[in-house]
Amino acid sequence: MTSLTDLEYRNAFIRRHVGPDKQQQQEMLSLVNAPSIDALTNEIVPRDIQLNRALQLEDATPEHEAISYLKAIAGQNKVFKNYIGMGYYDTHVPNVILRNVLENPGWYTAYTPYQPEIAQGRLEALINYQQMVIDLTGMELANASLLDEATAAAEAMAMAKRTVRKNKSNAFFVDENVLPQTLDVLRTRAEYYGYDIIVGPISKASEEDVFAALIQYPGVNGDISDPEPIIQALKEKNAMSIVASDLLALCLLKTPGEMGADIVIGNSQRFGVPMGYGGPHAAFFATLETHKRTIPGRIIGVSKDANNKPAYRMALQTREQHIRREKATSNICTAQVLLANMAGFYAVYHGPEGLTRIAKRVHRLTGILSEGLVAKGIRVLNSHFFDTLTIDPLHNHEIIVERAAAANINLREDKNGYLGVSVDETTSREDIEELFDIFLGEHDLNATKIDDDLDQQDTSFLPESLERQSSFLTHPVFNSHHSETDMLRYLKKLENRDLALNQSMIALGSCTMKLNATAQMIPVTWPEFGKIHPFAPYNQTRGYRTLVEELQNMLKSITGFDAVSMQPNSGAQGEYAGLLAIRKYQETLGEGHRDICIIPQSAHGTNPASAQMMGLKVVVTKTDSKGNVDQEDLAEKVKQAGDNLCCLMITYPSTHGVYEEGIKEICQLVHDHGGQVYMDGANLNAQVGLTRPADIGADVSHMNLHKTFAIPHGGGGPGMGPIGVRKHLEPYLPSHVVNPVKNANPLMGAVSAAPYGSASILTISWMYIRLLGANGLKTSTQTAILNANYLVERLKAHYPILYTAPNGRVAHECILDLRPLKAESGISEVDIAKRLMDYGFHAPTMSFPVPGTFMVEPTESESKAELDRFADAMIAIHGEIQQVKDGHWPADNNPLVRAPHSQSDLINGWDRPYTIKEAAFPLEWVGENKFWPFVNRIDDVWGDRNLFCACPTTDSYSES
Amino acid sequence: MTSLTDLEYRNAFIRRHVGPDKQQQQEMLSLVNAPSIDALTNEIVPRDIQLNRALQLEDATPEHEAISYLKAIAGQNKVFKNYIGMGYYDTHVPNVILRNVLENPGWYTAYTPYQPEIAQGRLEALINYQQMVIDLTGMELANASLLDEATAAAEAMAMAKRTVRKNKSNAFFVDENVLPQTLDVLRTRAEYYGYDIIVGPISKASEEDVFAALIQYPGVNGDISDPEPIIQALKEKNAMSIVASDLLALCLLKTPGEMGADIVIGNSQRFGVPMGYGGPHAAFFATLETHKRTIPGRIIGVSKDANNKPAYRMALQTREQHIRREKATSNICTAQVLLANMAGFYAVYHGPEGLTRIAKRVHRLTGILSEGLVAKGIRVLNSHFFDTLTIDPLHNHEIIVERAAAANINLREDKNGYLGVSVDETTSREDIEELFDIFLGEHDLNATKIDDDLDQQDTSFLPESLERQSSFLTHPVFNSHHSETDMLRYLKKLENRDLALNQSMIALGSCTMKLNATAQMIPVTWPEFGKIHPFAPYNQTRGYRTLVEELQNMLKSITGFDAVSMQPNSGAQGEYAGLLAIRKYQETLGEGHRDICIIPQSAHGTNPASAQMMGLKVVVTKTDSKGNVDQEDLAEKVKQAGDNLCCLMITYPSTHGVYEEGIKEICQLVHDHGGQVYMDGANLNAQVGLTRPADIGADVSHMNLHKTFAIPHGGGGPGMGPIGVRKHLEPYLPSHVVNPVKNANPLMGAVSAAPYGSASILTISWMYIRLLGANGLKTSTQTAILNANYLVERLKAHYPILYTAPNGRVAHECILDLRPLKAESGISEVDIAKRLMDYGFHAPTMSFPVPGTFMVEPTESESKAELDRFADAMIAIHGEIQQVKDGHWPADNNPLVRAPHSQSDLINGWDRPYTIKEAAFPLEWVGENKFWPFVNRIDDVWGDRNLFCACPTTDSYSES
Repeated sequence: MTSLTDLEYRNAFIRRHVGPDKQQQQEMLSLVNAPSIDALTNEIVPRDIQLNRALQLEDATPEHEAISYLKAIAGQNKVFKNYIGMGYYDTHVPNVILRNVLENPGWYTAYTPYQPEIAQGRLEALINYQQMVIDLTGMELANASLLDEATAAAEAMAMAKRTVRKNKSNAFFVDENVLPQTLDVLRTRAEYYGYDIIVGPISKASEEDVFAALIQYPGVNGDISDPEPIIQALKEKNAMSIVASDLLALCLLKTPGEMGADIVIGNSQRFGVPMGYGGPHAAFFATLETHKRTIPGRIIGVSKDANNKPAYRMALQTREQHIRREKATSNICTAQVLLANMAGFYAVYHGPEGLTRIAKRVHRLTGILSEGLVAKGIRVLNSHFFDTLTIDPLHNHEIIVERAAAANINLREDKNGYLGVSVDETTSREDIEELFDIFLGEHDLNATKIDDDLDQQDTSFLPESLERQSSFLTHPVFNSHHSETDMLRYLKKLENRDLALNQSMIALGSCTMKLNATAQMIPVTWPEFGKIHPFAPYNQTRGYRTLVEELQNMLKSITGFDAVSMQPNSGAQGEYAGLLAIRKYQETLGEGHRDICIIPQSAHGTNPASAQMMGLKVVVTKTDSKGNVDQEDLAEKVKQAGDNLCCLMITYPSTHGVYEEGIKEICQLVHDHGGQVYMDGANLNAQVGLTRPADIGADVSHMNLHKTFAIPHGGGGPGMGPIGVRKHLEPYLPSHVVNPVKNANPLMGAVSAAPYGSASILTISWMYIRLLGANGLKTSTQTAILNANYLVERLKAHYPILYTAPNGRVAHECILDLRPLKAESGISEVDIAKRLMDYGFHAPTMSFPVPGTFMVEPTESESKAELDRFADAMIAIHGEIQQVKDGHWPADNNPLVRAPHSQSDLINGWDRPYTIKEAAFPLEWVGENKFWPFVNRIDDVWGDRNLFCACPTTDSYSES
Repeated sequence: MTSLTDLEYRNAFIRRHVGPDKQQQQEMLSLVNAPSIDALTNEIVPRDIQLNRALQLEDATPEHEAISYLKAIAGQNKVFKNYIGMGYYDTHVPNVILRNVLENPGWYTAYTPYQPEIAQGRLEALINYQQMVIDLTGMELANASLLDEATAAAEAMAMAKRTVRKNKSNAFFVDENVLPQTLDVLRTRAEYYGYDIIVGPISKASEEDVFAALIQYPGVNGDISDPEPIIQALKEKNAMSIVASDLLALCLLKTPGEMGADIVIGNSQRFGVPMGYGGPHAAFFATLETHKRTIPGRIIGVSKDANNKPAYRMALQTREQHIRREKATSNICTAQVLLANMAGFYAVYHGPEGLTRIAKRVHRLTGILSEGLVAKGIRVLNSHFFDTLTIDPLHNHEIIVERAAAANINLREDKNGYLGVSVDETTSREDIEELFDIFLGEHDLNATKIDDDLDQQDTSFLPESLERQSSFLTHPVFNSHHSETDMLRYLKKLENRDLALNQSMIALGSCTMKLNATAQMIPVTWPEFGKIHPFAPYNQTRGYRTLVEELQNMLKSITGFDAVSMQPNSGAQGEYAGLLAIRKYQETLGEGHRDICIIPQSAHGTNPASAQMMGLKVVVTKTDSKGNVDQEDLAEKVKQAGDNLCCLMITYPSTHGVYEEGIKEICQLVHDHGGQVYMDGANLNAQVGLTRPADIGADVSHMNLHKTFAIPHGGGGPGMGPIGVRKHLEPYLPSHVVNPVKNANPLMGAVSAAPYGSASILTISWMYIRLLGANGLKTSTQTAILNANYLVERLKAHYPILYTAPNGRVAHECILDLRPLKAESGISEVDIAKRLMDYGFHAPTMSFPVPGTFMVEPTESESKAELDRFADAMIAIHGEIQQVKDGHWPADNNPLVRAPHSQSDLINGWDRPYTIKEAAFPLEWVGENKFWPFVNRIDDVWGDRNLFCACPTTDSYSES
């Protein structure tokens, strides 16, 4: 009989989260020659930073209990009907997309499509998204999304500055009718870029000496004025025009593209993505072909594969991968892929007719409301509008607001004492009738019932000259999948082309692709979290505040920090917010002159970019032969910086996958010289429960919730990068102009559009920590270390391991050196990466931080069986390389250089020096669960030379 | 600008449900040469039965509104904590199974695995389920599930009777400690089988002259007595022993198999399937190898494919497909595949250790409750128990029940005035403390807190001699997937082997594989529906009753019947319940002698089987050359039956896919001779909105909610077969002994274990009807007819269409005659069915109702594009057959006879007279979304000769 241990379910979840079971662990420990997992990690983590006590956290909670507890928290939110607008609208998530994309691990566990041959599904979806943005904005080029509308505006501002060479102005004009959160973020960014922000009526934009202007179209108050004269006037002054717009409005309005705008940005949230108290959503960014090399973020482009078949991939990757460290004005390196794809699918499902129908309905309902109010003598301030009215309540402001509250309705409080109403897709005829009651205060059915048939009238309240004449979404993809059956099959077809975590291990060094447990994902789509507007009144969001506060406390306990800001939407944004806090702190001390940021050679590319954006000068410090920070060189650099030392940015364990000895001394050295320590949180997964950034000496660090704390990668976003700080930096954490952050310094501006970033996915990390508890978290970290060291033992005879600790151990990841093999055989790291696809695996991180290597991070969630399959594949590939070296296969016609193999190879006829079995079923278990890359190796160079970033025509396929 | 029509979302869902859009419909109408869809159906449906008015139903409701409305209905249910037991227990559905199986169209939209080469995923899952049942019961053979425990008991009774040849008794003994609903169903069944039911203490079973006995182990009151002496005593009398048991208890108890039982049955619900107010759940049925030819239901067996690779398929299909019409004592022809798979996966995920842990915890908590009560002087009646106690409340019965109700707790009301408590997987330490409070009425913390550590004690309250000594679930599949990552990938791997509706059309004649919309599926997994015990008190189930009543009203409106019973869990069970009503009605009229049931030649096999079970004599009436009932022959048969005519069973439109003229006359003829008309509802999808069974003349009909009303097929179940009846039959609809059915005659017994059948999936049909409304339902039917007639036009030049109406039209399905091609080329209907897999399609219904044909029913949900792909595939296959005929390919080595092609064919090397492209990518679009059958053609005969119905060992794979 089984022992009774664990009858209480105490360790129910940890057994599900961690891959190897007790017996597998024993076998693995035996191979790595360690008596126990504690002994192993004890010899790996330096003594002087070991935590040696349990984290202060609630006990591990079984899945059902944690879900019940979080459901109770969710119940503290009050779901009101929202007419607030301001960039966020309620929407109907099409159920087929909800279930088969947002709630489907085939989509949400995928990684960023750096290996495009096994990511053609989501790449096609992203191309759809780009095409949708291009069509609706009337622009020539769109990226694959940014984090939110406000940061998209900030990116547009920076891009404009680096583009308008003839214009030497340092001033940026902002439409006074802008979303307030956009202005807030622009002000924060502009400060350290050194730009002046001028706010005023947009008609005055061209009267000022500015390098660019931001036009909100339609404005936050609902007004629609014609941007074209301003755009033209700016053009004449060599100033760029940026239009912030709304995709639904653009179904009916003349496009900014047709007016000559340079950049169009906005939020795609209302295309079927829940509000979620502010995020995650995909912001869009569109511009002109001529700016293709300066557009921020990722762009998906069309290229061709080795069989000349059209194939998608991220375009202009050299630019992306090597962010220009020296003169970066953007640190953006991610997108909101999952949300962009949902928005794109929304357009695919509705098509141009469906979107127009929704837009017209929204417009018509708004018109009925306006006409009804005006007929009753109420003043509506807008002469033209799409979905938003600004209404003068006269002396009835208070009573109207009271009536609204009593009816569970949120109106927009306009800055001038007016009240605003924004209609959305979910608004019904009955809702408008209810609004009449609220504004008119009468329940006279005859007066407030809408008795004209909605379908019978088509009155437009748009300026006639601004009615859209151009067609959009004419590509077949937007006109073929309107039945649920067709849509379901389209989604499935694309899903089948992608390799995600639900298929096999994705051992991406530094990216921590661990289990995204279902129990963690379930609360994300609860309406109590999804249907909350980010600017809903305080008393409606108690659930979210409890969630945030509890998660903050968990993260403080885990990191040792004193305060946490949830606002940053990505690791890079966390870096930015962290450096901002450091600079503000130093300014308060009168040390605003400190402007040198020291960064080790091996740092993530975002580190110098973020420093640059904060007006810091980057000084690079060397790495020694063992991959550690060269402490002598660092001491020298610190000395050289002298009084100007601002901070050190350092990753721990290092990007080389080792717990450096002497990290405490390094931090101390910086502190001794008046500097602050920013710890990059990319490798926090190797610290949790074993050591803590604040104990090591960090003043601030970001935490990648989408890595360490189990938020899935979503195929390339969303992410979350909250930062933890020590007490002295707390007053410098971001706040928010519309919805001030609790306990934050109200003088601080925002770094994101929403006060708590992508609040709705905080549920995932909350669940993750509650499910594991202190012991589970520690066990996870230890298991991640065991798994990495096990792989080292399995692979070291075939691939040299770079940068181990003196005792031969690695941390939670390891670097396989592929350069000697390449030198001997000509087979490159790219060949091996592509070849792994034929075995059913996604390649590890390639050539970071060392060119010609793989960085392998198996995470704690992989079982011994899966690790063995991966090791077997790598060893088999080693054997194949030997065959090339030995001349058994020609150097230009072997399974490696022709990898990956797609079904097109079968269709085209087989005439190769190796068999189909050798090509596609090289080990016996591959056939048990074969994953076929949909295309052959993609030609990146051709794609970048022939940049095409929209949906290819059907013809282009048949021509190929 | 788009027209404003439909701004109101009125037709939002119908556009999603129906495949062809307006433009496609026009193109299709043009090809079929009809001016409009109304004109088309007008010339197809006989004038005298046309409805010519809209159904009386609520307006079509948009998805979000229908979901909100149903959520409000759900909210009328009160979710109490249940200790009722009696075969139903709360359970934790593992979240990874919930999301990735129950909520995943890859699993729930699959069809019954009649085409096993493209169903290896769910067949493996079912083999796991069978292995689990075999291991836990200790038996040699298990089937792939039955509808519920009560009907499983009835099937066991019937099987015993047809097995025990030496024993001439007509009496069946039932343990008085049986589940009352089981006894209820046994009584109903026994009546027309002509068996006597004797109920008594099981120890007396062998004292009676019986052919078999049913032993409940453990008993409904919680007692565990040793069945072995009874089993042995029965054996000596050539009587069979049937043990009804509980899978969780069997983790700790000696198995009935070890005691010599002949049959073991029960419910697998508590293995991770929500209670759902009674269903759907999978009942299990296990027996001995010697009975393999008489076991009811489906059995999955292992065979081998053309490459000698082990492969799963439904075993003994000849038995299954051709239910012995003459002497059937079972009409069961389905299983609860989706639920059986969930239960099997639950065992895979928990493994033997996890299941033992759950069982021990349940047992320990029950023990703590018992000891605590006894210590306080309360009498617990059970000397031995597993999870259930029967407690003597003395004079406190009322107050205890009141306290329980106040605490939202349901106890079992024992028949002797005692109170029962059944502990389950979800019961916590705190729950037991709460039960102390309820029974003891004191809130003395010292008295009722459980302060011993659950994990520290292992006291057993099982009889020592009955403690399980044998191991179970030792197969690797139950010991490899215990982390969520591993489980997720295992589920995905199996899903990838199955072709379901989310991949391509499954045009199964008579099975109506239409869209199962996500919005319809979402409510199924709401806890307000899932967590309701079928015997929860009336005042807790208002939501379910509203749901049932509203759906009854909808179905009454659609069919024209006066009353509807939701109890039957399948079409065949509906037939049984319908015939039961007819017989009871006739008995009341003093016409119990009427025992002749006339059935047309082409009827579904279940019809004669159901008639047989009701003690009716089957008389077959002929079909004329056009496939219609031969009215002259019918008149003759009716005349011959004379006073003994009980009823006619007839399908409409006919199983030949044609609206027969003269159906009204046929019904009239039967009525004129004192008979009743049972209309088989299989083809109701072709009637909805155009005509109604009751208007045509039916007295009773079943409605396949899993076909016509969008409940998904689940890979082979669940189903629902409610029956509608005219007023005179209403008093003879089934009731229920524990939870009497509203408005039902209390003298009527039950036909299912639960009063409203599989109540939780009624949500799907409710949603379906609400989303479509009267117009949408009619449009769906019309579109189904258009789609079928479009396929006829596309295919008739290549395949003769059998049985069209005089005007050349078909109804909602059509029969393609493959016999001429076979005669010319030797290529059989099986070859064509298998060949379709290479094109990515599931074959249509094969050889029913006419051998050597395909019956094709595309349903309304398929778009023109998909219909065209199917037609293109069929035409391409026709071309391939020509090539065989012409000698281009050898008769024994061509893409048809070697179909389907699996990846093993590639691995084994290609040496065939046709190319890989011709084999696996015969049309260009196949490669866009290639589905690979996981195995080659399966050898059914070998499998039946070498019957093996459990998990194959890993060795067996490597040997192959």
